[in-house]
Amino acid sequence: VTTGRRIDGYDIVAFDADDTLWRCEDSFRYAESRFAELVGPYVPKGVDLDAALRAVEKADVSVSGYGVKAFTLSMARAAIDVTDGAIPSAVVGDLLDVGRSMLLETVHLLPHVSEVLVEIAANIRIVLITKGDLVHQTRKVTTSGIEHHFSDIEILLEKDPAAYDKIMKRLGVEPERFLMIGNSVRSDVLPVMALGGHAVHIPYHLTWELERVDHHDEDVVELASIADLPAWLGIRSAFS
Amino acid sequence: VTTGRRIDGYDIVAFDADDTLWRCEDSFRYAESRFAELVGPYVPKGVDLDAALRAVEKADVSVSGYGVKAFTLSMARAAIDVTDGAIPSAVVGDLLDVGRSMLLETVHLLPHVSEVLVEIAANIRIVLITKGDLVHQTRKVTTSGIEHHFSDIEILLEKDPAAYDKIMKRLGVEPERFLMIGNSVRSDVLPVMALGGHAVHIPYHLTWELERVDHHDEDVVELASIADLPAWLGIRSAFS
Repeated sequence: VTTGRRIDGYDIVAFDADDTLWRCEDSFRYAESRFAELVGPYVPKGVDLDAALRAVEKADVSVSGYGVKAFTLSMARAAIDVTDGAIPSAVVGDLLDVGRSMLLETVHLLPHVSEVLVEIAANIRIVLITKGDLVHQTRKVTTSGIEHHFSDIEILLEKDPAAYDKIMKRLGVEPERFLMIGNSVRSDVLPVMALGGHAVHIPYHLTWELERVDHHDEDVVELASIADLPAWLGIRSAFS
Repeated sequence: VTTGRRIDGYDIVAFDADDTLWRCEDSFRYAESRFAELVGPYVPKGVDLDAALRAVEKADVSVSGYGVKAFTLSMARAAIDVTDGAIPSAVVGDLLDVGRSMLLETVHLLPHVSEVLVEIAANIRIVLITKGDLVHQTRKVTTSGIEHHFSDIEILLEKDPAAYDKIMKRLGVEPERFLMIGNSVRSDVLPVMALGGHAVHIPYHLTWELERVDHHDEDVVELASIADLPAWLGIRSAFS
């Protein structure tokens, strides 16, 4: 682990949300298991339903974007296609219900998130930068109980260098004074570093296939837990 | 028609997009007609499919928000519910295709939009403020051919006074120096006027049921066409 610059080396600390502040991928994995259970009876044994669903998701992402509504449409489409229309529409309705439950699910903060945000927000301006569905991400933010810590909430279509550049300009921060914290090397770390900004990777035990990075040449700072962040920033912590 | 303040009475002129700059509601009406055609054979004669779809849409909007993906999910749900599962899933697949076509549809600018934006942007800072689905609205903006006229593009979850207040602060404009142009009294006019800002209503011949306002006490400025806007703002126009 690289030693951190002290917190006064930054003007803004930005946090990703899904699987950085609260659980997210777990719900998708659960939905995938429900997809397999619901669609399984209508396909020959041996059909790889996970692969079928992911293929549809991958094809749909450029049209539908990220998030639960896009995923729900992909589940319905995949169920109809992989069964060649043999699945009853009532079962497609069950898949729509799975998606609806995801949209309405209570936010589950990850361990230590509340305390860490209190501690860091007492020392520096913090912002939240997430991507995905506007209505769902907004619902999660407003029901999370942690919204008030953030000076700004940005919900993006795609986390690429152009999007970060725009946000940094809007926030009035130079890249070298900007630190991004997140679980995705692809979305939270590499695009920020490409602009000359700083990032800390805090892996989550699950990573969505489309977020995986096979290879990169950056020397990425990684912390095992968000609980390690205050100490890394040189802030005394009551619990770390 | 109230006489307009001259353009130097404002710092920013903001435009709504759907049915103000480009056609939108027409696609939804077409999709509704496809819904009736596709689902009709599976319900008893006399069932009001338009009403069934709108009831589901209305129930879904608080969970799914605005936009084509939410609408597509509502179509699928309504088709399954109103037929009590009798509709084949392949037909539900056809409804998903209707939604996908809407997401991929070419943007059709309304008459005079290009010329009016050129003319107004030459005189004042203009911004675009729309609501709905992040990926779809972004696609429309970037393929519209008019994106470069706008200093800022804001895609909101809901166009209420709180959202406009936030945007005006972000843009650094006082409400009394802000003019909003749009086709929806509910979303483009009343919330802006509630903040002390200014608005011009340019009706479109179709209005989505959920955008309708039954009653209000404001004296709303209305223009028949966006082509009338430069003259209303006291800008000489080559074509009006």
